[in-house]
Amino acid sequence: MSTQPIQPKIRLVGAGPGDADLITVKGINALGEADVVLYDALVNPELLKYAPYNSKKIYVGKREGQHTFTQEQINTLLVDYAFTHGHVVRLKGGDPFVFGRGVEELEFAETFNIETAVVPGISSSIGVPTLSRIPVTHRGTSESFWVITGRNSEGKVPEDVKLAAQSGATVVILMGLGKLKEIVSIYQSYNRNNTPVAVIQNGSLPTENIAIGSIDTIVEAVEQEGIAAPAIIVIGEVVRKNPQAEYLLALENHLLN
Amino acid sequence: MSTQPIQPKIRLVGAGPGDADLITVKGINALGEADVVLYDALVNPELLKYAPYNSKKIYVGKREGQHTFTQEQINTLLVDYAFTHGHVVRLKGGDPFVFGRGVEELEFAETFNIETAVVPGISSSIGVPTLSRIPVTHRGTSESFWVITGRNSEGKVPEDVKLAAQSGATVVILMGLGKLKEIVSIYQSYNRNNTPVAVIQNGSLPTENIAIGSIDTIVEAVEQEGIAAPAIIVIGEVVRKNPQAEYLLALENHLLN
Repeated sequence: MSTQPIQPKIRLVGAGPGDADLITVKGINALGEADVVLYDALVNPELLKYAPYNSKKIYVGKREGQHTFTQEQINTLLVDYAFTHGHVVRLKGGDPFVFGRGVEELEFAETFNIETAVVPGISSSIGVPTLSRIPVTHRGTSESFWVITGRNSEGKVPEDVKLAAQSGATVVILMGLGKLKEIVSIYQSYNRNNTPVAVIQNGSLPTENIAIGSIDTIVEAVEQEGIAAPAIIVIGEVVRKNPQAEYLLALENHLLN
Repeated sequence: MSTQPIQPKIRLVGAGPGDADLITVKGINALGEADVVLYDALVNPELLKYAPYNSKKIYVGKREGQHTFTQEQINTLLVDYAFTHGHVVRLKGGDPFVFGRGVEELEFAETFNIETAVVPGISSSIGVPTLSRIPVTHRGTSESFWVITGRNSEGKVPEDVKLAAQSGATVVILMGLGKLKEIVSIYQSYNRNNTPVAVIQNGSLPTENIAIGSIDTIVEAVEQEGIAAPAIIVIGEVVRKNPQAEYLLALENHLLN
């Protein structure tokens, strides 16, 4: 029996986009000191090897169609485990503050005066395009990139996608596969028909799958490739930098004409 | 003397925002196999410890007022070292494809049929706000974030900053400190006077320094704090999530009124 008093502490750690080797050293060090790890559906379970063998590892994945924990239940679990076990690592896919509701978890913990910390992770919004050789920025082609959720807290495509379609930004849409047709319509209404699009499923993993097309052809390309969630959508001229892009875009043009 | 033929290979590796522990496992593994490392001004030199002791480590920093290499010279160095020494790691600050000209380096190498690969890194555009407890997205407050260079290839503030000021996006501007007054004017012309702004220098390092204000007060706050480049600018309601923000914004309001 330990005689040391329990020191409640919660660290939010970004696990990166999927490949276990895309976690940071700081993330591994945090896992190594964990008494409890709460991890998400999009986290690579291989990462649990970095936590002490006798630490608790608890899956709190939130995915459609599965038994799930609500955000409120996760908040409560974090605090409960911190008080009963000490150091809790909350391991989240990507970066904990990018569409992760990480702030809500920290704010809830802080109302109990629990010490908190955050370790950034590689967000799939940048890391996945980079691995597919799509630079979200490119000198002379793209001076910015805009990362947008495909489904806001009301379940809708954000209004700002209309502004995005009028901008020169590379647009990266997360959690947007179910809204792809709607997003395509918005781009079409601003005559962006020929803008290249890539849709990447399971980016960074061996199961990665990519579809490339233009705004006018991407819906068909996604169906042909059998792309399913989780997937990210990248819209912009920089998609042409992917080694397969020029070939696929030319092929589609040929089939359409 | 080795009798193995030289296998030219170039890997672009993201070093993260500055803290040496924010590199990935994959990045460390690449460094461990390097015959030559070419590294930038914004890379933490501590990371060189992961490269073999007898590997060449070459500083190719490009910073104002210092002896520098041009992009063309760096491209040539990469290829020359790959042919003469084998495995070259090009270590770049942040993610190699975010305002990094990494694509140009790879494309040049590929014209010589050299094998290339990319390892993503934590971009300061996300990692630095996260470490400052500023979530670039927040349920109900911000459905997107837009990362923009403060200085495009013509040395100007991109036109899209005007669209950004009309959007609901959290706006993150890199390399924009020298253009802060101009960016503030754009936001003022869209009546965004009270939108909170954070300017963070040396994010993730012990020398980190942060100024927080509103669009109307941030220029003065940056001067008072003595913030210098490299710094990132974060504009949006999410800045209020930083623990010091409410206090600093209230203080300024008090001083102004």
